[in-house]
Amino acid sequence: MKFLIQKERLSKSIQDVIKAVASRTTIPILIGIKIDATDEGVALTGSNSDISIKSFIPKEENDTELVDIIEPGSIVLHARFFSEIVRKLPDSIIEITVDDQFKTIIRSGNAEFVIHGLDAEEYPRLPIIDSENSFTLPADLLITLVKQTVFAVSQSETRPILTGIHWVFENNELIAVATDSHRLALKKATLQIANNLAYNIVIPGKSLSELIKILEDNNQTVVEIFVTTNQILFKAKNILFYSRLLEGKYPNTAKLIPTDNKTKVKINTKEFLQAVDRASLLAREGKNNVVKFTTMEQNMIEITSYTPEIGKVVEKVKSLSIEGEEIKISFSAKYMIDALRAIDGSEATIYFTGTMRPFVIKTDQDETILQLILPVRTF
Amino acid sequence: MKFLIQKERLSKSIQDVIKAVASRTTIPILIGIKIDATDEGVALTGSNSDISIKSFIPKEENDTELVDIIEPGSIVLHARFFSEIVRKLPDSIIEITVDDQFKTIIRSGNAEFVIHGLDAEEYPRLPIIDSENSFTLPADLLITLVKQTVFAVSQSETRPILTGIHWVFENNELIAVATDSHRLALKKATLQIANNLAYNIVIPGKSLSELIKILEDNNQTVVEIFVTTNQILFKAKNILFYSRLLEGKYPNTAKLIPTDNKTKVKINTKEFLQAVDRASLLAREGKNNVVKFTTMEQNMIEITSYTPEIGKVVEKVKSLSIEGEEIKISFSAKYMIDALRAIDGSEATIYFTGTMRPFVIKTDQDETILQLILPVRTF
Repeated sequence: MKFLIQKERLSKSIQDVIKAVASRTTIPILIGIKIDATDEGVALTGSNSDISIKSFIPKEENDTELVDIIEPGSIVLHARFFSEIVRKLPDSIIEITVDDQFKTIIRSGNAEFVIHGLDAEEYPRLPIIDSENSFTLPADLLITLVKQTVFAVSQSETRPILTGIHWVFENNELIAVATDSHRLALKKATLQIANNLAYNIVIPGKSLSELIKILEDNNQTVVEIFVTTNQILFKAKNILFYSRLLEGKYPNTAKLIPTDNKTKVKINTKEFLQAVDRASLLAREGKNNVVKFTTMEQNMIEITSYTPEIGKVVEKVKSLSIEGEEIKISFSAKYMIDALRAIDGSEATIYFTGTMRPFVIKTDQDETILQLILPVRTF
Repeated sequence: MKFLIQKERLSKSIQDVIKAVASRTTIPILIGIKIDATDEGVALTGSNSDISIKSFIPKEENDTELVDIIEPGSIVLHARFFSEIVRKLPDSIIEITVDDQFKTIIRSGNAEFVIHGLDAEEYPRLPIIDSENSFTLPADLLITLVKQTVFAVSQSETRPILTGIHWVFENNELIAVATDSHRLALKKATLQIANNLAYNIVIPGKSLSELIKILEDNNQTVVEIFVTTNQILFKAKNILFYSRLLEGKYPNTAKLIPTDNKTKVKINTKEFLQAVDRASLLAREGKNNVVKFTTMEQNMIEITSYTPEIGKVVEKVKSLSIEGEEIKISFSAKYMIDALRAIDGSEATIYFTGTMRPFVIKTDQDETILQLILPVRTF
């Protein structure tokens, strides 16, 4: 194997695929990045037990030569060393040569690295995805969909299914839900799916977090999505991103969301968020980061927290409107902050149905998003 | 105690003094910041066993009112909470009130924090410094002096005296030396010291690292320095910085520095540094981060490193000139990188006296700095 390649482009591709490479792995060869040089260009692959990422660098792009293949071939190189070496090489062109013994020579300017590679034949094959059924999403919508839900997945492995995001496709609509059983995030998107495809899958939250780091955030980039029984493949320009799916039945979350309400409080998101953030400063030291929310006269809201050893905070915020019954309720400041950040509108409305009942946060500015938080019993 | 104060200025002062506050301390009150409100303004103090920092906010500065003292007094508040609260308060003005029971009310806009303070009478007194003998240094020179030496102090407590920087003042010259016994950094500065003062002190490296973080890096700011037998005080505008001195005799380092040389290699600092950095990429995995340096024909230098499990690197760098005997020598890449960064000139000269002898790095562009590295025996 022998080829010349543009340093910047190679470095970018390494940064993409290395996100799938774990520093510790039970399969030794997965510590490496697989390099395949073919007549079409150079492909890099990184993988762990959950996700695999393949990045392709074509021979030419926009009339610029990116790769010059002298002899096709494959090799696996230690991911971290390969990444650091490439990043620090002096020249903008890099020459990579592999001999029969997997000895790899990386040359650039006056620098020459000789490192021991591994046999690419030993590298696991990527999952085979049936390419008949697929649908597409613009990259920016996919990124929003993930950002507005992924923070609510469970961080604990007690119920592994809750570490994933539930995606349900039906009637050209995608509903994404994440919950750790203390709060829930829901986001809808309208899709045009051919063949009337319907899916009901759970994708690991970690996989989606990695995916959105390597997608370009714009609506020109289109992501094609393929689903099989245990894998999902996201295909963007020059990138293939595979993730395993979580097995098991996702709980029925629809029945958790209250449909009626007794108190409706409309807030300025930023002011309210900052007040909750301040009120939680002392609460963070306590075990549960809980703040108390009370509606007052003249559309005022009082947010308080009290930690015996440290002291107390009282915040008064003017709401835009309060309709319905008075309410006194306690909740996790962190969950409220996460929910308001996800909603990302200048105004939001909180719908309460009672001190002990879950409450819902929505915004008139975007009807596709809903956040739900379970209160904490302190009264 | 009761006063109003500008938030930005208070926040800046807290950031300065909190550098002296340890998160864990055997003296519980040192977890706090002491606040003294007097008719002149507000002083904040933070302290640990090594350093104490006092920052003063005057009532007025450049015709702007910074503080409005309603009732003088003192209190000690938990440093981390106080810092976070102040940073997140909504309004640009903060009101702080303390009642007889050390209960402290912090108000700003619609936010009100009530936190338990501690009795300022319990807070340790700052060291008393005899103010007769002092000398001055411009802040930028003091910062350079520290930056060009402090990285070479010992990180190990095996010989505590080596964790400090040795400052010797004599005949209007200050010589600063740091060594961890594997390398040495030396910097000279010319001072005008009245009364023909002479000092020979060892200042903890950590203290000086903290000091330069809070000094403004310019030559208008003048730092006045007071030395007693076990304390040093740096006094800049509105800042007092106290550090204890290290006890014990600093080793005689002058005799370590070779005065003759057999090989003189002049290099382009940046190119050479990058080549050493690359050569050390694989060496870092080995135990000692060692690279091999060999002079070649036609003013070329070869830098190599070899780590059996991973591979090898060969770097060729053109030197500006090589005079004297050929040399083959091994040294720590990290020490070389630290030394070249400290020298901070476009060109540097390395003076070798043999494969087993310490070598010296200097630059014609700045004769006040010298770096010395002990080679590693590999040949």
